[in-house]
Amino acid sequence: MVAALEKSIAEPNPLKSEEVQKIHAYWRACNYLAIGMIYLRDNPLLKEPLKAEHVKYRLLGHWGASPALSFTYIHLNRLIKKYHQNMIFMAGPGHGAPGVLGPVYLEGTYSEIYPDKSEDEEGMQKFFKQFSFPGHIGSHCTPETPGSIHEGGELGYSVSHAYGAAYDNPDLIVAVVAGDGEAETGPLATSWHSNKFLNPIRDGAVLPILNLNGYKIANPTILSRISTEELESLFVGYGYTPYIVECKEDDDYLECHQKMAATMEHCVTQIRAIQQEARSSGVAKRPRWPMIILRSPKGWTGPKVVDGKKVEGFWRSHQVPMGEMHTKPDHLKLLEEWMKSYKPEELFDENGTLIPELKELAPTGTLRMSANLNANGGLLRKALKLPNFRNYGIDVQKPGTVEVENTRPLGQFMRDIMKCNLHNFRLFGPDETASNKLDNVYEVSKKTWLADYLPEDDPCSQMSPDGRVMEMLSEHTLMGWLEGYLLTGRHGFFHTYEAFAHVIDSMFNQHAKWLDICIKEVSWRAPVSSMNIMLSSVVWRQDHNGFSHQDPGFIDLVTNKSAEVVRIYLPPDVNTLLCVADEAFRSTDKVNVIVVDKQKHMQFLSMDEAIKHCAKGIGIWDWASNDDCGTDPDEPDVVMACCGDIPTMESLAATAILREEFPELKIRFINVVDLFTLTPDTEHPHGLSHKDFDTLFTPDKPVIFNFHGYPWLIHKLTYRRTNQHRIRVRGYKEEGNINTPLELAIRNQVDRFNLVIDVIDRVPKLGSAAAHAKERMKNAIIENLDYAFTNGIDKEEIVNWKWPY
Amino acid sequence: MVAALEKSIAEPNPLKSEEVQKIHAYWRACNYLAIGMIYLRDNPLLKEPLKAEHVKYRLLGHWGASPALSFTYIHLNRLIKKYHQNMIFMAGPGHGAPGVLGPVYLEGTYSEIYPDKSEDEEGMQKFFKQFSFPGHIGSHCTPETPGSIHEGGELGYSVSHAYGAAYDNPDLIVAVVAGDGEAETGPLATSWHSNKFLNPIRDGAVLPILNLNGYKIANPTILSRISTEELESLFVGYGYTPYIVECKEDDDYLECHQKMAATMEHCVTQIRAIQQEARSSGVAKRPRWPMIILRSPKGWTGPKVVDGKKVEGFWRSHQVPMGEMHTKPDHLKLLEEWMKSYKPEELFDENGTLIPELKELAPTGTLRMSANLNANGGLLRKALKLPNFRNYGIDVQKPGTVEVENTRPLGQFMRDIMKCNLHNFRLFGPDETASNKLDNVYEVSKKTWLADYLPEDDPCSQMSPDGRVMEMLSEHTLMGWLEGYLLTGRHGFFHTYEAFAHVIDSMFNQHAKWLDICIKEVSWRAPVSSMNIMLSSVVWRQDHNGFSHQDPGFIDLVTNKSAEVVRIYLPPDVNTLLCVADEAFRSTDKVNVIVVDKQKHMQFLSMDEAIKHCAKGIGIWDWASNDDCGTDPDEPDVVMACCGDIPTMESLAATAILREEFPELKIRFINVVDLFTLTPDTEHPHGLSHKDFDTLFTPDKPVIFNFHGYPWLIHKLTYRRTNQHRIRVRGYKEEGNINTPLELAIRNQVDRFNLVIDVIDRVPKLGSAAAHAKERMKNAIIENLDYAFTNGIDKEEIVNWKWPY
Repeated sequence: MVAALEKSIAEPNPLKSEEVQKIHAYWRACNYLAIGMIYLRDNPLLKEPLKAEHVKYRLLGHWGASPALSFTYIHLNRLIKKYHQNMIFMAGPGHGAPGVLGPVYLEGTYSEIYPDKSEDEEGMQKFFKQFSFPGHIGSHCTPETPGSIHEGGELGYSVSHAYGAAYDNPDLIVAVVAGDGEAETGPLATSWHSNKFLNPIRDGAVLPILNLNGYKIANPTILSRISTEELESLFVGYGYTPYIVECKEDDDYLECHQKMAATMEHCVTQIRAIQQEARSSGVAKRPRWPMIILRSPKGWTGPKVVDGKKVEGFWRSHQVPMGEMHTKPDHLKLLEEWMKSYKPEELFDENGTLIPELKELAPTGTLRMSANLNANGGLLRKALKLPNFRNYGIDVQKPGTVEVENTRPLGQFMRDIMKCNLHNFRLFGPDETASNKLDNVYEVSKKTWLADYLPEDDPCSQMSPDGRVMEMLSEHTLMGWLEGYLLTGRHGFFHTYEAFAHVIDSMFNQHAKWLDICIKEVSWRAPVSSMNIMLSSVVWRQDHNGFSHQDPGFIDLVTNKSAEVVRIYLPPDVNTLLCVADEAFRSTDKVNVIVVDKQKHMQFLSMDEAIKHCAKGIGIWDWASNDDCGTDPDEPDVVMACCGDIPTMESLAATAILREEFPELKIRFINVVDLFTLTPDTEHPHGLSHKDFDTLFTPDKPVIFNFHGYPWLIHKLTYRRTNQHRIRVRGYKEEGNINTPLELAIRNQVDRFNLVIDVIDRVPKLGSAAAHAKERMKNAIIENLDYAFTNGIDKEEIVNWKWPY
Repeated sequence: MVAALEKSIAEPNPLKSEEVQKIHAYWRACNYLAIGMIYLRDNPLLKEPLKAEHVKYRLLGHWGASPALSFTYIHLNRLIKKYHQNMIFMAGPGHGAPGVLGPVYLEGTYSEIYPDKSEDEEGMQKFFKQFSFPGHIGSHCTPETPGSIHEGGELGYSVSHAYGAAYDNPDLIVAVVAGDGEAETGPLATSWHSNKFLNPIRDGAVLPILNLNGYKIANPTILSRISTEELESLFVGYGYTPYIVECKEDDDYLECHQKMAATMEHCVTQIRAIQQEARSSGVAKRPRWPMIILRSPKGWTGPKVVDGKKVEGFWRSHQVPMGEMHTKPDHLKLLEEWMKSYKPEELFDENGTLIPELKELAPTGTLRMSANLNANGGLLRKALKLPNFRNYGIDVQKPGTVEVENTRPLGQFMRDIMKCNLHNFRLFGPDETASNKLDNVYEVSKKTWLADYLPEDDPCSQMSPDGRVMEMLSEHTLMGWLEGYLLTGRHGFFHTYEAFAHVIDSMFNQHAKWLDICIKEVSWRAPVSSMNIMLSSVVWRQDHNGFSHQDPGFIDLVTNKSAEVVRIYLPPDVNTLLCVADEAFRSTDKVNVIVVDKQKHMQFLSMDEAIKHCAKGIGIWDWASNDDCGTDPDEPDVVMACCGDIPTMESLAATAILREEFPELKIRFINVVDLFTLTPDTEHPHGLSHKDFDTLFTPDKPVIFNFHGYPWLIHKLTYRRTNQHRIRVRGYKEEGNINTPLELAIRNQVDRFNLVIDVIDRVPKLGSAAAHAKERMKNAIIENLDYAFTNGIDKEEIVNWKWPY
């Protein structure tokens, strides 16, 4: 067990009488505003008796979490002012947005950004009415909320977001409130370990405030119902020094403020002391960072009892403490009394403006957490200094004859990106950087590691407290870090196993939605760097790991999100990968998904060809076609189309067989790099017009489309295309176990032999030769499967196949 | 902090000299087999000098995790025999399958199930060769593995699976090895809290063995690189008493066996004592359950050094300690020496059969963990005793005129299911049972809660140690519990927020894949109950929570999985919901996804009609059609199709408007309950033939399809249908923020007015009336949006709309 905690707090009652009164008054103002937002559409200062018509018909928002959020916020404000501390705020329980919006409005930022929500009665009325009201703002800390980079709608990511924001931000403290409901989620439960990846010299700090208000919607929370001993042990085990601030319903509010002020000051000074020591000694070690556990009543300061039932300090105050305001006059009465209990007339002047004595409690300018530039990170963002990606390309003299590991040159490119952008670029991946052949980055920056070292750690282990390659076996935590890092204006690249990208499906959804709102509805947010995701260890090379590791469906999900935000690339080789990566690094406000395998693959395009090909995103490969290079759109007998590295190779191999079997057959070979070219241009900015699509694919010739993913995704994208029924799509159809690569391809019919059969079945003009050729293909399949079963590997001629023309 | 741990272990060296020697010999046999599986295709007993031709070309499998798995397994065996303990084994690091398959083979189960892998040299050769070999078994604890109900391919779910298996299984101990890599995942990190939901009286126990072997693929693990004090604190915080067994590379193996034997015996007797006390006193409280932390070298007993580099006890032994066996003779030599170091000649007789003195160490019959019936739960499964679902239906005299909360009668049905099946049915949901209107179940069974109680807990809190409603704010943990519960032969129902079902996308994928393999390839596995998932709080009723809560894409993912396994139902009302739920409860080996909203909705079908409608899964609603009831397939001018509760209501409302505006227009109204009816019958067993599809939808008339989810999912399912381009699909297209329900519908064009416009645009014969009608629709849209913006709610006439015919 860890020795007794360092719990002595220097100054137990740091606030003078006047100051504590003022702080409490400020909190009353916050709570008043929170209730106003939830309930009122008019009569904001209660200057006239409250009537039903002043109350919204639909009561939305979560009162329960709100008071503790504003309580925390204003105590942070005190320290920001005192220490001129650079700080941002994240509300894990983002559904308690009224507890955040209140202080944001009081410190003036809201009115600066949204001038019609001015700091007066009229503005307050609009501020109240707009909350969770059609056509206006939501009930979470959505992108519209100044100072927010964490919506808190989907729970679980507050702490990882906080750490992501703190990395490479040495002056910043990220204060993050985690709710005890959220604390039950898996992603949050592991993200506490992020402290093993935070370097006190070059990174900022995270101050977690775990708010135990005891309840979720209708249940107590686990962490509020274990002993204090267990609770403390848990966070000591996570590597923190937890400080408990306990405030009960009947506690004196002023004493609560004193406790919070003392504890928070202790924590902030501890953080500064830790940083000071590390920075002056130059020794980066993991300290035991402080954290606060705030036990406070749910719906604190709200009605104690409604309709005879306990509300304050109970799950009944989770959302609105009472409803039916238009039919129950006693509820209306209770609301009025409740709101008046905060004495708004002492807080706001006649005009509805916060009185100056309180106004001065908040910091000013960009020290305000709501106006901190880190929370509108695009303003701080500097474009990446990108070396010329062409320099990392490989020489392709003749297509389809050389094999290279597709991702290794990307790793070299990223090594130099890291070199040129050492303080604002990081690479994220779950324990797979070397496995994904990106390990050249270690030449410039090693793996971040602030946990213990052992004598056996050798240089090959590539660990360092100064590293900027982030590896932890939690896709959730990595993704959370990346999001926090990007939204504070930096750059990153995330790579993961294709099948297990589904672990972070929901995080992708949320980030894509965040960006979509920012682009379309929040003009004051400056563009941030795109989220770049590389899926490697792809389905077709999971023949050895088997069925559970085979799932190319992440991109299916991606296609459901806003066309303004999402991009999907399937580069077939090294040079195309470098092109799309370069584009991804330059882009903003996007999610770029790149699907590429890490193993050795055939190389097809020279760098110049790759640049041209990627610029269009789709194109005819003349060298693989024999239809007079596509000058006549009706020319070919069949279109062999492909998308993805392995399907491309199989399509080419099929084309080679076809050219040998049927020398007269005119084949057009099309490769797709940018998946969204397949959709109409009315659906996605990268989409081809129907005319261009028909020019490429012809309007009526059979198309044999060999696809990396689930075949029906192509049908989903092309269902509006001319004669779409002529497009025969092959792809992964959940057939696989332990196989050889070819066997896995055969089981899903993306292999060369089945593709030839597809052509034979669809092109009538092949005549009598067709039947024989088909027979040969069937035999080849049987023969290759037999070989695989016997030897456990594919034949040499398959493994070393080269484009023969 | 928690007081000093109870660490005194009664008998520190419980094994007699002969016994410990035997146990070690058994372990040597396990390790020998593990290496054989990874490396050999022939010469299994090394009777002749090892040659390259005896070695597989492709070396797959993870040696690193294997020795500690078998080490643990055989120490569990000792206690199973000693106490006749009912026990199963789960390998979190399932990629260490060789460490599981070894003991499974040695105790004879493997040969019983797969007679060609007999207990002799010939069988051993096949047993070795088949491992991770094309056409044979995988390198994880896949369904083919006797005794496994946890593949361990995707990491994070071992502990929740273990608890799920233990619930309502009072005699069972689930021994679960969690790897320290897996322990970094979010799902695992929170699943330790499952102990707050385990009742020592009526549930079995979980004995977690956290194996700290220190490394992942290429990195140390977090938990192996924090101080022992932090490590112990963490697990004390999680509510366990951790016992550390530490074995280093150079430790005497016999001493390691003594330590493990002593600790494991202490834990098992502790578990039995806890249960004994609770069961005799009748008081169910949460004890501090024991757990083991086994620190052991990665690749334990393997080569210490290969090519001059440290291997044993290091990340280099994660997969195979050395490769290139066909080109590096010294590697081959090393392999032979290594294998011979286990002295196979002492372990196996001349025939290759384990010698009797060792054989007797394993339990026999169904006491063997590999033959325990709980790990082939279908054998134990009893069909649910189902009350007649018709009794919970509602009386629908006239369609489209009454509103009822769709899910409440289902809650009443499940209340009685629970009553009739109290020991093998559980309901799972993240804090939303009441919110989803299923709270009638509490009348029979409350929420399981073994954490602390407070005086304020009132009967409305519905908590009890005896409850069987499982609520925790972790979809991962709930899903893991459900999977463990189902795979051990019981029944369950999981309900969650539609948007946040994506949190468990990957778990769904894995379970669907597990079932697919069981159905198709593992005939000895008896069918288990289906996984039933209800998605509520659907996208169309997230108008108030806003954009982040709007995502109907879970079902997109479901359609990617095997047609043998997946079913998707979108019942439009109460009676259809009851029908499909009844079918779901009766089914086996499926994942049934039911999408239905919890709020008040229009009721359409009487119970008899609902039964008929659900039997087909799709059908014409005559009462809403005016095309002579579909007797002539070419009759209607337009087909109004719909799928999902809210889209159905809007389609009906549109139909009512159309009938008023264009009395001559012949409309056929089709509702889809079973989504897979839309696919061809060649693709899914529920699919309609093309003929039947055309009979319903006509071959050529315009279809206006109003869909619950993303519209392109319908195109994906119907792309092969006749004239698919005539199907105009409306659905959610990522347009939404804070809206009223109608406004959200309008923004995505699934509302009645836009549907009418769609019909006008697609049916040419409407003539001059069309333009006026279209104008009226556009005006209605503007008017309703204005009303919503002003009042924050929809007009009374929208909210209370009824079918007028």
